[in-house]
Amino acid sequence: MTLHGRNLIAGEALGESGDTFRAACADTGEELDVVFHVASEEEIHRACRAAECALAEADDDNYAQVEKLLNLSADYIEELGDELIERCMKETGLPAARLQGERGRTCGQLRLFADVVKQGVWLDARIDTALPDREPIPKPDIRMVLVPVGPVAVFGASNFPLAFSVAGGDTASALAAGNPVVVKAHPAHPGTSEMVASAISRAVKDAGLPEGWFSMVHGTTPETSIQLVTHPAVKAVGFTGSIEAGRAIFDAACGRPEPIPVYAEMGSVNPVFFLPEALAERGEQIAQGYAGSISLGAGQFCTNPGLGIGLDGPQINQFVEQVADLLKESPAQTMLHKGISENFCRSLFTLSENEEVETVVSASVEGNQAGPTLLVTNGEALINESSLSGEVFGPSSLVVKCSDKKEMLAVAERLEGQLTATIHGTESDLAAYADLVTILRRKVGRIIFNGFPTGVEVCPSMQHGGPYPAASNSLFTSVGTGAIRRFARPISFQSWPDKQLPAALRNANTLGIWRTVNGVLSNDPVG
Amino acid sequence: MTLHGRNLIAGEALGESGDTFRAACADTGEELDVVFHVASEEEIHRACRAAECALAEADDDNYAQVEKLLNLSADYIEELGDELIERCMKETGLPAARLQGERGRTCGQLRLFADVVKQGVWLDARIDTALPDREPIPKPDIRMVLVPVGPVAVFGASNFPLAFSVAGGDTASALAAGNPVVVKAHPAHPGTSEMVASAISRAVKDAGLPEGWFSMVHGTTPETSIQLVTHPAVKAVGFTGSIEAGRAIFDAACGRPEPIPVYAEMGSVNPVFFLPEALAERGEQIAQGYAGSISLGAGQFCTNPGLGIGLDGPQINQFVEQVADLLKESPAQTMLHKGISENFCRSLFTLSENEEVETVVSASVEGNQAGPTLLVTNGEALINESSLSGEVFGPSSLVVKCSDKKEMLAVAERLEGQLTATIHGTESDLAAYADLVTILRRKVGRIIFNGFPTGVEVCPSMQHGGPYPAASNSLFTSVGTGAIRRFARPISFQSWPDKQLPAALRNANTLGIWRTVNGVLSNDPVG
Repeated sequence: MTLHGRNLIAGEALGESGDTFRAACADTGEELDVVFHVASEEEIHRACRAAECALAEADDDNYAQVEKLLNLSADYIEELGDELIERCMKETGLPAARLQGERGRTCGQLRLFADVVKQGVWLDARIDTALPDREPIPKPDIRMVLVPVGPVAVFGASNFPLAFSVAGGDTASALAAGNPVVVKAHPAHPGTSEMVASAISRAVKDAGLPEGWFSMVHGTTPETSIQLVTHPAVKAVGFTGSIEAGRAIFDAACGRPEPIPVYAEMGSVNPVFFLPEALAERGEQIAQGYAGSISLGAGQFCTNPGLGIGLDGPQINQFVEQVADLLKESPAQTMLHKGISENFCRSLFTLSENEEVETVVSASVEGNQAGPTLLVTNGEALINESSLSGEVFGPSSLVVKCSDKKEMLAVAERLEGQLTATIHGTESDLAAYADLVTILRRKVGRIIFNGFPTGVEVCPSMQHGGPYPAASNSLFTSVGTGAIRRFARPISFQSWPDKQLPAALRNANTLGIWRTVNGVLSNDPVG
Repeated sequence: MTLHGRNLIAGEALGESGDTFRAACADTGEELDVVFHVASEEEIHRACRAAECALAEADDDNYAQVEKLLNLSADYIEELGDELIERCMKETGLPAARLQGERGRTCGQLRLFADVVKQGVWLDARIDTALPDREPIPKPDIRMVLVPVGPVAVFGASNFPLAFSVAGGDTASALAAGNPVVVKAHPAHPGTSEMVASAISRAVKDAGLPEGWFSMVHGTTPETSIQLVTHPAVKAVGFTGSIEAGRAIFDAACGRPEPIPVYAEMGSVNPVFFLPEALAERGEQIAQGYAGSISLGAGQFCTNPGLGIGLDGPQINQFVEQVADLLKESPAQTMLHKGISENFCRSLFTLSENEEVETVVSASVEGNQAGPTLLVTNGEALINESSLSGEVFGPSSLVVKCSDKKEMLAVAERLEGQLTATIHGTESDLAAYADLVTILRRKVGRIIFNGFPTGVEVCPSMQHGGPYPAASNSLFTSVGTGAIRRFARPISFQSWPDKQLPAALRNANTLGIWRTVNGVLSNDPVG
């Protein structure tokens, strides 16, 4: 497809602001073709109002249309074919195989949510029938179902240009819950964004939904983001990115006359603890997994293992050497964009300036290419200096040598909220370090035994989120089917006539869904 | 029991600030005996740290203790006997029968949550077993369960001194989710609060939980509230009260270095729509219900019907006369405290100053006694003047006469988020006003047909909450079993050894709870 470079607002390509930008080739830094147009405030307003109107005129029980929208979006993204992968490679520097895999995940996720909509269990339909003879007062018939919260603003991340971007998990779950969506495209991959947005926009039309159901706007400064988040028609926000941007969006949303929820996934350092028996038994194998997890995808994952923690002594020293040898062999990779490689260099420079930090493997950063880095420090330094446990986005990890178990516990206690923590241990290590587990459980969304944090399975039991600052709201996940619950609210119908109830609550159960009827799960009709 | 007037902090009675107050008799305004001590910042700190430490030292699987705590709290509140009711009558002016009923509801609610803990379904345990042979990469074993979010601060309301106060729904649900609780007692009923707090404190001890599991602090100014909400150990807030206080608490919680969720239920005007056929068929009967709902409990309910909306004409005029006649016969009742009766007078005065508002029944307010009020305005005035649709806390309602259906829809569109909306109509009214229902559904937590909003059933399908400003977070209810979900967050265990998993996730399912195993609900063991 030919890129037009404009904002896609309720099916129309608009770009009147006069403010333009181009994407850069991740490999060479050269500007790519196509001029993109930053959305004007008026265009953002149009997108948000169109979303609001679309929802107001939609049928209450448009589940079949929503299911169709999700499935068609997946189909049409696939139909974009190699052109999408090629543009995306240029804009992100990610290799073809990775992007093909990510496209599979993205389309799989859209279809998974289509299935969730079809099953209808997520609607959490509850029916408590009347007890007219109850004493002292009769009990009325009350029925509850989840309904869309309203138009959702989605902010894509640069590191997953497909799976956490325009058609990523936030968009898929917000659409699945029955909401219109306005996406703010990430300026690092605007062409990829336009292609995916055009697929969704086409799906909206073919699913018979109003065109305002989906819009995408471009922006290169926080201004665009704040305009979108503070628009009165927007009722919730999904975000994946840095803590600075996430917090700014959170603050703007909370400061509105009508505050709205923000689900911001802001990354973490994902500490990995190496316990003594495990290191003794299979140190080399752990070193291989750790080095692989550090350098995977140039370390550009929110689950990258930024901290490795063990007890000081010959074992950890040997382990560090093994990891270092592996990382030295690991080739430099292209980072997503200039801003990211510059930040990576800056963070490493600050760390290396610290007297307590020793650089074991020094990053080779040339232009936008970065090799992996390994740093070492001690437990006391980490406890005293909070900047050491901050996220370094890129292929880097800091090994922390603790003088004893007590110091290791203090290091764990020092950590902020995390997406994940990992323990490498034998079962007897785990029993001996039960207090470490107790501390970590309070701080994380996911805790892993003898594995690595990279690789986030899309399944019902996945929690991708965690206590602040890993996420702005620890009660929800941004990956997996549970993500849909972020974008729906309950409404109760009291003594409502059966035929005017939403389909999910009518006696006949024509949707055939599981419902909680007088406290018992059932997919039968009522009465 | 003899009241000590101090803060109850981790089982100790403390009051070192030197800042004291007394409760006033609601009927006479005279100061009651017992001097109460405002908590010092140090005492608030102690309560919060004690809660944090209590949680850190608690067993992971302390469900049986939590269940016992809830059941014993109910038992011990009942053991307080008539003394509790007598003190509460003095402090609130509410009649004995109402308070006995409310005590029943409070204890019933505690026991209901004990049962929820025992059933364990709320834990939402999910197990996805490993697929070691999956291509291209193996799928690890992942298991998820809800865990306590951390110490919860609870702010009681003055209008339900038992059911929405120290041992009310917020406390019950926060405890049920496994959290320690620090309650800020409402200064209008400090003696009632102390008695109930002593019962919970005794239950904590007898359930074998650390004494820091529960504390109660006194305060008379926003300062105490803000100190509590901004304490780093506090991880969530439950609140019932005014929009001003709720928003201040929300803003303070969002502005923390680590923001925390605030579940504030802030009331609403609960519009009641009278449709033409229903008024023609049974206007007198509706008038009776409406008048009763306005004056019930001196109108001091967050579900009080503050707005009645119908089409202008002889029907509504006759209806207003009928309601007026009933309200004139309705005796004055004691309001909860001086602040509330003063606010009531002030709000009525402001309304009556408006040229477009006609006072049909004028409130007789003498001291703390208030009779019911009925006011009338037109649809255009309500649309143009937002102050007319603000909440008047007390026995008052404003009838809005709309020139036609279009204006009625515009009035509905003008409303902010509401706890409830009610429609009185025949089924053919309802079909003719389907567009009204569509508008209201977007704005409310509960929609009622041919009933009245007062009376909030405690059951699984109840939604007591709604879009802002009815509540600060429309995704949750503060009444009913669903309220527990506000105070728990998911954690995933990946590849974790079975015997070190939380009990809810172990293969054997010794808790005997329902779990989602590989996508299917089951209460069987795994494997």
